[in-house]
Formats: sequence, structure tokens, C-alpha cells
Amino acid sequence: MHPPDRILMGPGPSDVHPRVLQSLGHPLIGHLDPDFTPLLDRVGEQLRTLFGTSNRVTFPVSGTGSAGMEATVVNLVEPGDDVVVGVNGVFGGRIAEVARRAGANVHTVEAPWGRIIDPQAFLEEVRKRRPAVAALVHAETSTGAHQPVAEIGEALRGEDTLLLLDCVTSLAGVEVAVDAWGVDAGYSGTQKCLSVPPGLSPVTFSDRAVAKVRGRASPVQSWYLDLTLLLGYLDAEGGRTYHHTAPVSMIYGLAEGLDLVLEEGVDARIARHAHLGGLLQDGLTQLGLPLLAQEGHRLPQLTTVGLPDGVDEAAWRARLLKEYGIEVGGGLGDFAGRAWRIGLMGHSCDERNVRLLLAALERLLDETR
Amino acid sequence: MHPPDRILMGPGPSDVHPRVLQSLGHPLIGHLDPDFTPLLDRVGEQLRTLFGTSNRVTFPVSGTGSAGMEATVVNLVEPGDDVVVGVNGVFGGRIAEVARRAGANVHTVEAPWGRIIDPQAFLEEVRKRRPAVAALVHAETSTGAHQPVAEIGEALRGEDTLLLLDCVTSLAGVEVAVDAWGVDAGYSGTQKCLSVPPGLSPVTFSDRAVAKVRGRASPVQSWYLDLTLLLGYLDAEGGRTYHHTAPVSMIYGLAEGLDLVLEEGVDARIARHAHLGGLLQDGLTQLGLPLLAQEGHRLPQLTTVGLPDGVDEAAWRARLLKEYGIEVGGGLGDFAGRAWRIGLMGHSCDERNVRLLLAALERLLDETR
Repeated sequence: MHPPDRILMGPGPSDVHPRVLQSLGHPLIGHLDPDFTPLLDRVGEQLRTLFGTSNRVTFPVSGTGSAGMEATVVNLVEPGDDVVVGVNGVFGGRIAEVARRAGANVHTVEAPWGRIIDPQAFLEEVRKRRPAVAALVHAETSTGAHQPVAEIGEALRGEDTLLLLDCVTSLAGVEVAVDAWGVDAGYSGTQKCLSVPPGLSPVTFSDRAVAKVRGRASPVQSWYLDLTLLLGYLDAEGGRTYHHTAPVSMIYGLAEGLDLVLEEGVDARIARHAHLGGLLQDGLTQLGLPLLAQEGHRLPQLTTVGLPDGVDEAAWRARLLKEYGIEVGGGLGDFAGRAWRIGLMGHSCDERNVRLLLAALERLLDETR
Repeated sequence: MHPPDRILMGPGPSDVHPRVLQSLGHPLIGHLDPDFTPLLDRVGEQLRTLFGTSNRVTFPVSGTGSAGMEATVVNLVEPGDDVVVGVNGVFGGRIAEVARRAGANVHTVEAPWGRIIDPQAFLEEVRKRRPAVAALVHAETSTGAHQPVAEIGEALRGEDTLLLLDCVTSLAGVEVAVDAWGVDAGYSGTQKCLSVPPGLSPVTFSDRAVAKVRGRASPVQSWYLDLTLLLGYLDAEGGRTYHHTAPVSMIYGLAEGLDLVLEEGVDARIARHAHLGGLLQDGLTQLGLPLLAQEGHRLPQLTTVGLPDGVDEAAWRARLLKEYGIEVGGGLGDFAGRAWRIGLMGHSCDERNVRLLLAALERLLDETR
């Protein structure tokens, strides 16, 4: 097996640092080994730093970011619960769908693709429905919109509603402050700004979210993702009871990836993303291409950009991959066929990549003139 | 990070071949890369060979073996369906629990720990209940019992009931013949006889199982594991529609692990497990220790053995780990506190390991005499 040499500048996975790749190849130890569980504890501690939380229940779910979404939703939602979801792209829509399958009455607050959910409109719906859970996507990977959360969290403090935040693409790329914002549950993915391969989903639950799960009237519909069972293994006080076999090698990779993040420093990493995302977005604008996310609310790590009319975006993406080994993502939903999603996440967020992509794109554009 | 040097002879994970460890460290490519999807197709083809099936829908679920269990159950079971489950250990009990959470009326056919489910008793219950799904554990990892399946599958041919088989510990360790036995859905884990790290669950669905899923009246309760959505990505005819981000590095590892299995040959691998499992079990008997699984139905790759009265099994396991670096598993359920589970799976299934473990155990026993 000889995978081709790629520069991953799509919506994830991002390029993985050589130290993380090396860590994946360490020989295995058992998931109940006395040397393994401290590694899990360390990962939990590091994730708390990244999420900006003291939540005891902070750990990687054994699945990708979508499994983390499902884990938070199916634990927090009971059949018949009202749930309010902000939908301004694919991932808000996905939360709504997962919640419906968990038996929720879902009420959406919508915004056009690329725009943020208006905090006042969202709060108005929450006040009207008084839902069990209110959910937002912090970094909408399908549009590049960067949702403000602090104001909403502040307004919901003291309310019974639990605030759920999708941090898949935001964690370690822009500020995430779970405790300061009053977020009750969040989930992320390893393959975005953490630059660890896909396969794990860091999640965090506040004490009151855990209390809600423990006090459920009905069992969690997923056995695999049932928090009360998972805690028997994850929490030393649970006696390290076997639930399922932890993905040992992926945990090695995550631990190494988190070391890299903390060696750089969370603030420095966020500043790097902000700087290089700005450089890319300025460069695209100078090339005459429109940025599709709302001005003032653009993610630096995920940029949606429109292509000129008449361009076959898939053919251009294929050329970029073939001629430069660069992967970017196609548009989804409202942006399908007319936009790209350009990621600058974690190890991929490098000035060389920005300059190369802009140069390659300029050459492609020159051909059309 | 420097994991200690272990010999993994517990119920999984097993030791991973250096070639697989190396493959995990290959640089990433995207899950939609034109060079990645052929790798997924190759993995599917190799898994078909191992499962003994021509089932088109054969792929690795992005989670551990328990996620594969949940994936098969929640897709095949609709609320109100009758499900018959053979329960003679932890994993049959787990299927029953997952099915209940999917809304099934579960009827169990039980047998004491260590014994197989009596095929006639199982068939009788199936004829009585005419369930949507009948489920068995092929290799009960908690007891070491090797369930005969052919007779049951033969008797159910032409019936509406779908036969579901847990192959977590059996695949590539003992014969698995999905098509010949009339099995409609099966799942396995990577960390047992495949000797790939934990984190993926190979699954297979027959055409009629897929038809049942496609014809459901209600959506699958899990979005993450919904087969109809997964097929949009997995099946080239589905257009490779993004569903969730495939765990790229783990797929590299699985592909390399499957190469190793097929280079050895499935039959040769099964013969190796049979030979060395017999050697271990004979050795344990010679040491005066009782084998707890039913004679004639003992798995070679997972042996449950009783320890002498008065021995603190956890302390002995800790000594084995400390003095020899050998991991074995403690007993679960009925066997907790008085038995060990010794795995000889995949790369761990090596005569050197058998000889070393027996020698170490003999020394421990000598101390008590």
C-alpha cells in the first residue's frame, strides 16, 4: 500500500503531523492495562484544556465526529422532548435529524447558507418552546460560518434547557470556551484542527448534563453510546468496568496530537489559524472570487469560495489533485456545483499551503481569461 | 509515549503484526480521494473471502465490534419485532439488550455459561415465535464456547426469519461460512483473530437483509449506523456520497491485516489456531486446571480455564503482567473471580506464547504447593 502524496486542504481530514503518524504504530497494550488507563485520563485532561472546561466527563467517543453528535443527542434527548436546533447548513440539519430519530419534537431556527443563526431569533424560539436541548453548530463545515455562542449561552444561564454545541471543526482552530459560555455538552472530531486521523470524537458533558442522563426515564436508545455505561469504564470510580474495547492505537494518536497542540499553545494555535485564514481569504478576494460566508463571521480554518460561472468545479478539483496533489472539498447543499470548501486546519494550516493553493488557483483562472 | 512491551493473550486486543503497525503510519489521504475508495472496495472484497460470502454489502463499520453489533441489530429490527437470541454468556446478553433498546420483543434461549445453545431448543423457540431476527454468538468471548451454526441455518432456510451471527472472535480464527450456513447478517471486530487494532467492525448483510432494511416502515434509530445512508458512500453506485468521514488510518491497518490473513491462507490460519489452541488446552489440563467450555465445543482462540480454589486470580494476572509482560483476561459474569480467559488470536497465536504462558503458570502453581 502506497498512498499518494497529498496536501489535505479540504474540510477534513487534515494533514497529520509525523509525530502523530509515528505514535499510531506503537505496539498495542490492552484497554484494561494499568499503563493504558492513565493515558486515557491524560487525554481527558488535555481535552478539558482545549474545550475550556472543568467538566469531569470529557473523553473521546469511539467513532468519528458524527458518532459524537449522536452520542450527545441520544443521551440528552428522551422521546417526546422538545429540541431547538439552529440550521444554517448540513450539520445543523444533521443534528435535527439525529434528534428526530431519538424521538424529539424538533423545532428549527434557520438561516440562509453561509449566514449565522441570529442569536435573538434563536433565543426567541428557545423561550417559546422551553426545550430540553438547544443545539448550535459552532463552525458550520458546510458553509464556513462561525456562530457566536457567548450571548446565547449567557441568556440561557439558569434555564432548564441544556445547550449543545457542535465543535467538530472549531476545536483548536478558533476559541472554544465551554464553561465560560455555559455550554452543557459539546463534541468534536479528531481529523480537523487537531490533525489526528478520523475515528474518534472528543466530547464533554457538564455535571447537569450528566445528571440529566442519569435521571432519564427511558434507557438511552444506543447501547454503544450510552454515557452511563461508558462512565463505568472511563471513570476510575466506575471501576474500569469493560464496556467496549477502546481503540488503543487511535488513542495513542490523539494523545500525541494533543501534546502537539499544547506544546504550541492553544492561543498561539488559534492565532495561527486566524492569521493564515485571513491571508487565504484576502488572496481569494484579490483573485476576484467571492467569499460565501457572512462577513465578520468567517471561520479562518474553513473557507467557502465561489467559482466563476461556467467553471466545472469538479474538473478543477480533480486537476488540483492531479497536478498539485492538493485536496480541497466541493460545495454541499446550496453550494454544490459552484463553490469549494478550503480547509486550513491544524498541521495543514501552513503559509506554504496558502501560497501554493493561491498560485495554483491563479493559473487555473488564467486559463479562462 | 512509550507503551510497555506486552504479549497480548487476553480476549482482545491481540498483538498486531509489525506490517500492520507500519501501515497505520502512512500519511493520510481523504476519504473521498480517488485513491482511497478502491482501498475500501478491496477491503470489502477481502472481507467477503473471510466471511465466506458473496454479499455485496460487506464493509467495516466505523466503530468497535460492539458498534457492529448495534449496526446489524438497529438496521434489522423495527419496533415491535420479535427477536430470538441465544444467551450463554455476556455477548448474547448484549445482543438481547441492544435489541430491546431498538424496540424488539426479545425472547432468549439460554444455556449455562460455557455451554453452547442447544440447536433444537433454539429452533423450537424460533418456530414458536417466528421472529424477524434470530441471533447467535458464534464464538462467545466470555466463555470460550464455539456455537455450531450450520444445522440451525439449514433449518431456517426459506423462513422469513433473518439469522444474525456474532463473529467478533470467530472471524479468521475458526471457520466462518456465512453463505453456506444461511447467515443473513454478521459482524466481527478487528482486534481479535484479524490482529488489527480495535476500532473497526467488519459487517456483512445478505441481499434479503438489505431488502428488509430498505423496506423498513420507520427510520433506523441510529443515523450514524443507518445502512441505507452508509451505502450511499460505500457503494460506488451510491455515488460516493459523503456520510461520515471514514477512519482512514484504521482502514490502512485493516487492509494490511487482511493481506496478511490471505497471504497465510484462511484455511492455514484456522489450522494454526486449532493446533495451538489444542496445545494450550492440553497443557492446561496437564497442569491440573479445568477447562470451562463444553468439551467438543471449545474455541481454540479463546480458552476459559478455572484457577485453583483460594487463588486470587487478579493478583496472579497482575504478576503475569509484571513479571512476564503477558496479558490474559479475567473471567466475566459467572466466571468472575475464578477463571481466566486466554486468547491465542491472530498474531498472538504463536507456539512461543503457548510455551511461555504454560511455563509461567507452572511456576505460579508451584508456589502454592
